[in-house]
Amino acid sequence: MSEPLGGLLSAPPAIVAAGVDVFSEALRAQGADVHDVDWRPPGFGDPADLAALTLDTRRAAANRTAVERVLAAGSHLVDVRPAREVLDLPERTLLHAGPPIGWADASGPLRGALIGACLFEGWASSAEDAERILAAGEITLDPCHHHSAVGPMAGVTSPSMWLWCLADPVNGGRAFCNLNEGLGKVLRMGAYNDEVLTRLAWMRDVLGPVLAAAVRSRADEPMDVKAVLAQMLQMGDEGHNRNRAGSLMALRELSPAIVAVDAPSSDIAAVLRFIGGNEHFFLNLGMPTAKLAMDAARDVPGATMVTVMARNGTEFGIQTAGTGDRWFTGPAQTPVGLFLGDYGPDDANPDIGDSAIMETYGVGGFSMAAAPAIVRFVGGTVPDALATTERMYQLTLAENPAMAIPILGFRGSPTGIDVVKVARTGWLPQINTGMAGRVAGTGQVGAGLVQPPQECFGQALRALAEETRTA
Amino acid sequence: MSEPLGGLLSAPPAIVAAGVDVFSEALRAQGADVHDVDWRPPGFGDPADLAALTLDTRRAAANRTAVERVLAAGSHLVDVRPAREVLDLPERTLLHAGPPIGWADASGPLRGALIGACLFEGWASSAEDAERILAAGEITLDPCHHHSAVGPMAGVTSPSMWLWCLADPVNGGRAFCNLNEGLGKVLRMGAYNDEVLTRLAWMRDVLGPVLAAAVRSRADEPMDVKAVLAQMLQMGDEGHNRNRAGSLMALRELSPAIVAVDAPSSDIAAVLRFIGGNEHFFLNLGMPTAKLAMDAARDVPGATMVTVMARNGTEFGIQTAGTGDRWFTGPAQTPVGLFLGDYGPDDANPDIGDSAIMETYGVGGFSMAAAPAIVRFVGGTVPDALATTERMYQLTLAENPAMAIPILGFRGSPTGIDVVKVARTGWLPQINTGMAGRVAGTGQVGAGLVQPPQECFGQALRALAEETRTA
Repeated sequence: MSEPLGGLLSAPPAIVAAGVDVFSEALRAQGADVHDVDWRPPGFGDPADLAALTLDTRRAAANRTAVERVLAAGSHLVDVRPAREVLDLPERTLLHAGPPIGWADASGPLRGALIGACLFEGWASSAEDAERILAAGEITLDPCHHHSAVGPMAGVTSPSMWLWCLADPVNGGRAFCNLNEGLGKVLRMGAYNDEVLTRLAWMRDVLGPVLAAAVRSRADEPMDVKAVLAQMLQMGDEGHNRNRAGSLMALRELSPAIVAVDAPSSDIAAVLRFIGGNEHFFLNLGMPTAKLAMDAARDVPGATMVTVMARNGTEFGIQTAGTGDRWFTGPAQTPVGLFLGDYGPDDANPDIGDSAIMETYGVGGFSMAAAPAIVRFVGGTVPDALATTERMYQLTLAENPAMAIPILGFRGSPTGIDVVKVARTGWLPQINTGMAGRVAGTGQVGAGLVQPPQECFGQALRALAEETRTA
Repeated sequence: MSEPLGGLLSAPPAIVAAGVDVFSEALRAQGADVHDVDWRPPGFGDPADLAALTLDTRRAAANRTAVERVLAAGSHLVDVRPAREVLDLPERTLLHAGPPIGWADASGPLRGALIGACLFEGWASSAEDAERILAAGEITLDPCHHHSAVGPMAGVTSPSMWLWCLADPVNGGRAFCNLNEGLGKVLRMGAYNDEVLTRLAWMRDVLGPVLAAAVRSRADEPMDVKAVLAQMLQMGDEGHNRNRAGSLMALRELSPAIVAVDAPSSDIAAVLRFIGGNEHFFLNLGMPTAKLAMDAARDVPGATMVTVMARNGTEFGIQTAGTGDRWFTGPAQTPVGLFLGDYGPDDANPDIGDSAIMETYGVGGFSMAAAPAIVRFVGGTVPDALATTERMYQLTLAENPAMAIPILGFRGSPTGIDVVKVARTGWLPQINTGMAGRVAGTGQVGAGLVQPPQECFGQALRALAEETRTA
């Protein structure tokens, strides 16, 4: 041949550079024409697993099906009932947040909440007594997520607690969550002193019955909780650690029915004052709304979308649409953030709670751009909050048009975490969370930012790839 | 001399260019070293007047005094009382928004509201009868601002209407505003049909007495309206055309006291439903809060700060701290924005209402960056909203630390419009406003954006300069 190498060297080279820019810059400095390709090596995961999932012809359609069910899901508040009537629990069972765990591995706040629940139910007469029966295995522990339920922080739900009962009018699901106690010394943060137990008794005897009567009185016109959540993003809430507007809207929706309940007017005023004084009252309505949407996407073979992120204070667990009820777990990280009073980083327990269902649904940390004022509660800066939401679009399958973020020109919230995208980018979901004291009985010590351990996603990736190969 | 012109031409010239960049660019293209100065000719105003004000040694300290009083002012809700008890009005007097005006010059919505008020007070038996007595001068018309009061849109306030009574615990002032009727066919938008009059009667007979009893029952702990306004900016409201969070917070603050009022429970439920159903309920609390702050800055000799911006539907009027109660007026502009239903630009009346007191105080259009979702109500884009707030900092004397704008890193709202800065920049204050139908009886047709006529500021500049010369 007259032109060796097919003429490759007889004309100026056409250079395509991928990855780090040191090569392309050196070539450009020598006058070469370089085309950069925005490519990075995968963040983690076996290349063969990533290749198997990328080549799975089911995946695109399966993820579309999964995320479309999430986007379509609705959420109506249809009832308020005691857990024992709703959940069909065996005797002496307590639900808790996150993946399965036993007493031996439970962290301080989960232990504190379990002790408090035993006292509240009258199963034990003292904290020591409660610890003894819990340690002896006399109380069955089971994740909320195994019962269509979710619980913030320790998530401990006992038979006498009243639950919000939500229904998805589109996909037909049901989801449940107990009532929010407020901030500070509260059971879900691991506190169980008299103040906590007195409040729980009032919630059982006054708040629950009044709310139940109010909600039932408007059964023909149930509160549209999804619409409230959507409106919250227009009002500076992100729906996880900032629920101010949502709590006010819940008060507005329920108050006319509450005042019509046949109860002493002092009880009615106390109920209104309790709701009005609790800026997180809505959280326990938002969580089952997200749970309804994510449960609608369960069991879609080939889908690599995350359906659950939840923490029990020791482990972080996730589930995916393609792998059913299987948990993929890793050690829970400790949040970084702002502390109440004299508390500091050493007082904080590792990440705990089912409330990361909000991020799984695309709000919370994923929609921080809608809630710049939250940086005063969880830490960070306003530019961080904006950048976080922008980054989460890289991990997700869709933008939820119902959850529009005004400051981003009403762009929909980043929704439906894709395990493959997480592995490819190496970026982890961002979660806003409360922080419980690591010592049982302490209560809340602050709020901050946290991420899941990469390990959960590594395990899920492997399991999804295996399923692909055997499908 | 050996070097003519002092050597000016023997070395490369040092060139300083001010104003338009065509000169500096041409010189730069010839290799000259050009230093640009960011200077623009004054927007308007007699250079001698601007010079006199700039050289007035009182001005800096006077403006500081004026704006510091504004920033320090507080606002407590201390009572709810009928206008006839509070305002000490002569017989058959109606208050209205904006600068003074007579029936002959009144636009459609102001006429409609005046007619409706005569019917509501029983001074006339028909709209024709009302028009007759108004045209005959049998009813005295007086601006709200002459009575420490403010009224949104037509601002028509009659003796039987209940007023919010607010007090400034810092400067000792008092301010008043009637109760918000909601949107659509309402008196303040110029509607006066049976629906309007029936609602006004219910507000007189039920809403007012219940609110009065509720507010008086917490006299030892009055609602801090300024704190609510500050919180609104953290929740996506700008406090003029977006009052969603504020209205919800007012409901939360008042509802426990409302349910304790000795009134039929159906009335209590109706009051809660009325407040909960009116997203602008808070506006009539925000306006007197701004009025209290701006009135605290009245009568500071040498101060060029605006204390009032108000419109009567025909004229736009302003007052300044250095010129007392004197009005400077120009023709009201017609807002540009979004229309309800089938209404369009031809249906809109020129700018009307005392509600521009919000912008005078530094919220509303000045704080649009805090409320990006408002562009869906008043038009424009989210980047416009951010740019508007940035621009208003150029017209104002201070940043109000109490009114922090989260998306701007909690920068305080641009507060205290300086007539001199307006003249120098040529930029006019930005106002968010409702739009009333130009035909009496129509009601609201939309909401939009509007600016004062430059003329108001030109007149004020001249008067302030004259005062300076004779001081």
